[in-house]
Amino acid sequence: MKKRVTLKQIAKELDVSVSTVSKALKNSEEISRDTKDKIQAFAKLYNYRPNNIALSLKNKKTKNIGVIIPDIVHHFFTTVFRGIEHYAGERGYNVMICVSDESFEKEILNMELLANGSIDGFIMSLSAETQEKNDYTHLKEVLGQGIPLVLFDRVTEDIECDKVILNDEQIAYDAVQGMIRSGKRKIALVTTEGYFNVSFDRARGYKRALEMNGLDVDKALVLTLPYKSEDDTVIWDFFESNDIDAVLCVNEIFAIKCMDVVQRQGKKVPEDISFIGFTNGILSRYSTPKLTTVAQHGELMGETAARLLIDRIENDLEGNHKTEVISATIIHRESTIN
Amino acid sequence: MKKRVTLKQIAKELDVSVSTVSKALKNSEEISRDTKDKIQAFAKLYNYRPNNIALSLKNKKTKNIGVIIPDIVHHFFTTVFRGIEHYAGERGYNVMICVSDESFEKEILNMELLANGSIDGFIMSLSAETQEKNDYTHLKEVLGQGIPLVLFDRVTEDIECDKVILNDEQIAYDAVQGMIRSGKRKIALVTTEGYFNVSFDRARGYKRALEMNGLDVDKALVLTLPYKSEDDTVIWDFFESNDIDAVLCVNEIFAIKCMDVVQRQGKKVPEDISFIGFTNGILSRYSTPKLTTVAQHGELMGETAARLLIDRIENDLEGNHKTEVISATIIHRESTIN
Repeated sequence: MKKRVTLKQIAKELDVSVSTVSKALKNSEEISRDTKDKIQAFAKLYNYRPNNIALSLKNKKTKNIGVIIPDIVHHFFTTVFRGIEHYAGERGYNVMICVSDESFEKEILNMELLANGSIDGFIMSLSAETQEKNDYTHLKEVLGQGIPLVLFDRVTEDIECDKVILNDEQIAYDAVQGMIRSGKRKIALVTTEGYFNVSFDRARGYKRALEMNGLDVDKALVLTLPYKSEDDTVIWDFFESNDIDAVLCVNEIFAIKCMDVVQRQGKKVPEDISFIGFTNGILSRYSTPKLTTVAQHGELMGETAARLLIDRIENDLEGNHKTEVISATIIHRESTIN
Repeated sequence: MKKRVTLKQIAKELDVSVSTVSKALKNSEEISRDTKDKIQAFAKLYNYRPNNIALSLKNKKTKNIGVIIPDIVHHFFTTVFRGIEHYAGERGYNVMICVSDESFEKEILNMELLANGSIDGFIMSLSAETQEKNDYTHLKEVLGQGIPLVLFDRVTEDIECDKVILNDEQIAYDAVQGMIRSGKRKIALVTTEGYFNVSFDRARGYKRALEMNGLDVDKALVLTLPYKSEDDTVIWDFFESNDIDAVLCVNEIFAIKCMDVVQRQGKKVPEDISFIGFTNGILSRYSTPKLTTVAQHGELMGETAARLLIDRIENDLEGNHKTEVISATIIHRESTIN
């Protein structure tokens, strides 16, 4: 049985990254002549079948859409996917997903894989590592081949394509304004590493609200948590060593964890300290107290992304890219003073 | 631009089901001659490209795996997927998923789509509707073409293939035994419609534990909830009109909803009424009180399924199918008396 060498195997064999192999095989000028020669020779020797995106897609419609999300055990992304799938289904399209697992390399492999599976276009949200590296060569390549791409939520200004985003800056501003109106003054932000465009936008909204109200932006009141962490010590120390009366969290799980910690420290929510989180998932509805959250309307975001993509596919649209902004809403529950 | 007619479009055009179209195109004897003639003529006229599973898969390895899950906004299935992906990644395989959305028709379309995308084998969990219809023609077809298939969690005895299941009956039995040991006697079961093999097995374990302890199995104490429902009225009435001191719920969200209702009715958890749920998701860890759950070890289940599949692919194994049983564990938290 004939085995085909993959991008990943070449990368491993030659001890270079998948992205280097991919670029070398496309003769990119970013890669040295030496490295390119080595990689190209190896690929030829082992019968590497180059990315056949162009091959499979140029001239026929498949009625299939490829979706790449950064994480699958994640309420927001799966909700967006549901929206994509329902809308696409109504218009007669099937949907395949791959998960980048927040990895740049996997994102590249996913794109290759889905394109080989004959799709008419991509919908995706960038992986953490891609946003950190700020390298979008793989997206540019797909667009260069005339394959429509819609980015949602985690997007970049470096790529010209249709996008669906949330009004993150504005809704973070509104959330903090609400806290200030209810009498809170020492407002903390619990966020992720700064390379996520969404966290950056939410932080801007938070700061703008403080400044508009003549409050200092105190760096000590901004806690940056790793994207996934089971350890509560950092959270415990943060709330023990700072005087805080309200918290904006960039996701639901951070908010739930912080509420849990401060209640164990004997503080009352929302009287002593109020909380607003992003992601209106099921956790928010069953936490104690029930969490006030920013509803991101994931299904609507998914439907919008699918509509933009399918319209572009069916009408062979070129250029004239749109960015649609989904308006988030604050769902008031018990973790804030209303 | 040439458009290709899909199974779904043929079905819609001729007002028959996708499954009928699929069977007719394969000349199945289940379908009448008339219907077959009509469908085959239509497919020919509109240039339907038949399922190219055999075409794409017979003679080459693609290092791709196709996964079909019934639901994506679902902790257990996404956790299993994560296990599949991590294990497959380590062995150099890429993974694509489709979501059947609990629909029989979509499951068939998903299989077709993934097979077209060149995969070496399938891992899947059956949709609710497929289990209800009890029609596994699409699986038999894939197996008949020599494509390996591993079923997990929602499986069927009608199909001979590798399977990964949980010891559902035993762990439900253990859970109820524990409740009885802690002094509970009026034990309810909150479950889904009976066509899920897993719900059926859990109900059997529940009944066996009651019988072993000389307790009556009272049908009034078994509440069947629709798989997805936002309405709490049925739950409220069930707990108001029955004398219950412990509850086994076949998933986490049912348990959280029921706990919420009984606490609003003024009952104390676990003193008046104790709860155990299945699915050890994030909800269980942050509910009030924290929920005692059956951990299904989704990642391990996913890894096991991927191992069985990849071993079969790489060694060209035939027959000799295995069923691996994952042992669930009860995670004791605050909703039971220990």
